[in-house]
Amino acid sequence: MMKNKIAKWYQQSGSDGDVVISTRVRLARNLSDVPFPAGLGGERKNEVPKKVRAALKDSSKADDFDFLEMSNMEARDALSMVERHLISPEFSRCNEGSALVLKKDESVSIMINEEDHLRIQVMRPGLDLDDAYKIADEIDTELDKRLGFAFDERLGYLTQCPTNLGTGMRASIMLHLPALHERGAIQQMANTVSKLGLTIRGLYGEGSKPEGAIYQLSNQVTLGISEQAAIENLKGIAAQIIREERTGREQLRKNPRFEDMIWRSLGLLQTARLLSHDEFMTLISNLRVGVALGIVKGVGLDTISGLICDVQPATIMAANRRDMEPSERDVERAKMVRSRLSGTSPQ
Amino acid sequence: MMKNKIAKWYQQSGSDGDVVISTRVRLARNLSDVPFPAGLGGERKNEVPKKVRAALKDSSKADDFDFLEMSNMEARDALSMVERHLISPEFSRCNEGSALVLKKDESVSIMINEEDHLRIQVMRPGLDLDDAYKIADEIDTELDKRLGFAFDERLGYLTQCPTNLGTGMRASIMLHLPALHERGAIQQMANTVSKLGLTIRGLYGEGSKPEGAIYQLSNQVTLGISEQAAIENLKGIAAQIIREERTGREQLRKNPRFEDMIWRSLGLLQTARLLSHDEFMTLISNLRVGVALGIVKGVGLDTISGLICDVQPATIMAANRRDMEPSERDVERAKMVRSRLSGTSPQ
Repeated sequence: MMKNKIAKWYQQSGSDGDVVISTRVRLARNLSDVPFPAGLGGERKNEVPKKVRAALKDSSKADDFDFLEMSNMEARDALSMVERHLISPEFSRCNEGSALVLKKDESVSIMINEEDHLRIQVMRPGLDLDDAYKIADEIDTELDKRLGFAFDERLGYLTQCPTNLGTGMRASIMLHLPALHERGAIQQMANTVSKLGLTIRGLYGEGSKPEGAIYQLSNQVTLGISEQAAIENLKGIAAQIIREERTGREQLRKNPRFEDMIWRSLGLLQTARLLSHDEFMTLISNLRVGVALGIVKGVGLDTISGLICDVQPATIMAANRRDMEPSERDVERAKMVRSRLSGTSPQ
Repeated sequence: MMKNKIAKWYQQSGSDGDVVISTRVRLARNLSDVPFPAGLGGERKNEVPKKVRAALKDSSKADDFDFLEMSNMEARDALSMVERHLISPEFSRCNEGSALVLKKDESVSIMINEEDHLRIQVMRPGLDLDDAYKIADEIDTELDKRLGFAFDERLGYLTQCPTNLGTGMRASIMLHLPALHERGAIQQMANTVSKLGLTIRGLYGEGSKPEGAIYQLSNQVTLGISEQAAIENLKGIAAQIIREERTGREQLRKNPRFEDMIWRSLGLLQTARLLSHDEFMTLISNLRVGVALGIVKGVGLDTISGLICDVQPATIMAANRRDMEPSERDVERAKMVRSRLSGTSPQ
């Protein structure tokens, strides 16, 4: 699965790619005729993936998807999927009865028997909330027809956790905010957006640290609001953050040390023989803003997104099909980075 | 003078170039019929350069030399000559009556009216004490014939300072000792060699700090010893230090962090937009040992020696024919380094 040649969704760049890395929409859904996964065991739990698989087989797009049983998955492959945001950390530890439907380009994943029966997730490069929602909505509609999702006229979609009740939708965009991060402006921004029903946090959700100045902005409110209204709200706040980040970058650019730092980061990425993931994230963040500002030419944001994805610890091990010591991964990571950035002139 | 196209002596590498950057021999000489410079003023002081110039004009090699009056020299040009070891710091502040005879490839310089009437200096790439002494001796013999040097049958050559009495010779080699430096072995080595009549110190002599792990090893004793014996003594100790440094490098090489550091140094040198002289020396020292060990290919020790010489603060200003702020020099230094290392692959 790691070796197939189908281009991944993240190997493209999208709208507002200078600041927005990617967009994600996920819908929480439950079968109306089966209890929530938390209360399920054995036979009844296994029913859910069986039903979903059958529903998908009828679909015209069945060939685009792989159906993966979590109990058959190597731990490193599951962790790699967490790193690539295809599944949740909790789901990576799920076993019997849990399964994953994964589109071959990895832009769509459906976790079966996570907290809810289904978690339909769609990812798109750049800022693309409308398309991401549209694709998720189509999958939702088609599966609903065949499976019948639990829905209450007054509340909306029923979910295990009340925070998802209503739309069951979590829309988020992954933002690269080096200028705002540098200026220490993120905490203040987090306070502001929380009053507007949004949350901003590190790369791997709540409590995770912002590696490489990458943050997630997502909606929190699912009840008493339409999907479209939630998305418009998120779009509006995102536009403002993007504007502020761009202004901040133009400010940073006035300092010769900023350009120096960008080029040095490229130099280190192109030559290092040992590269920890933390250092990689710091350096690639510097390079990314340099590419976005047109300072460094000859390397694309798509190459950078691909690297950010592929050099994560478990993803390196998954690609090598074996577990590796951190020091061995550091060697492998440095090798991958050198190879993918080898065409970029340091001049 | 800075712009002429004659290749400089240091743009070559020499014997044992992995450890020995260059060899220098200087002879202190005084005219027998003129008092030492310290006691000279006005007319009588001016006599000395006039006599030397006349003596040189008769020589068959006169066309190889420039004759420069220190009173006509820009401060930055004089400081650049200090940086390139062509003149002493004291001499750079000399004015009326002081002059410099400089071979066009900069391998020979004769300071006139420094502490002594003449300081004849010969430099060679790598370890080359025999040739350096031979060349200095030939110049000495030819000038002695025409000028008549102060010589005492019992003491030897007479000099202003008693520490130079006898041979008047100071032979030194410039050593790159990153492994011994890293191991903190230099102080112990300095104690040992001082018992053997030698001294080891930083790049710019007594009290200067060892920039880029470059050290000078030189003889101290000039009285009661022949030039040949002093040189043989220096050669013997040098051979031992070179051996120890090479062993130390092989040890360092076993640590993957060492190779990583070498490549990173190349990366920073190839990309930095601002480069202080201190940082440059640290990085070029790392690169130099990498080249010497064959880890980094495609860059020569001659290129490195050229850079070490040319990116020094006053030498940058001399090449640009104007005074510059440190920050401006850092930009210019980074530009020169990038340009000269641009052909070296970071792979």
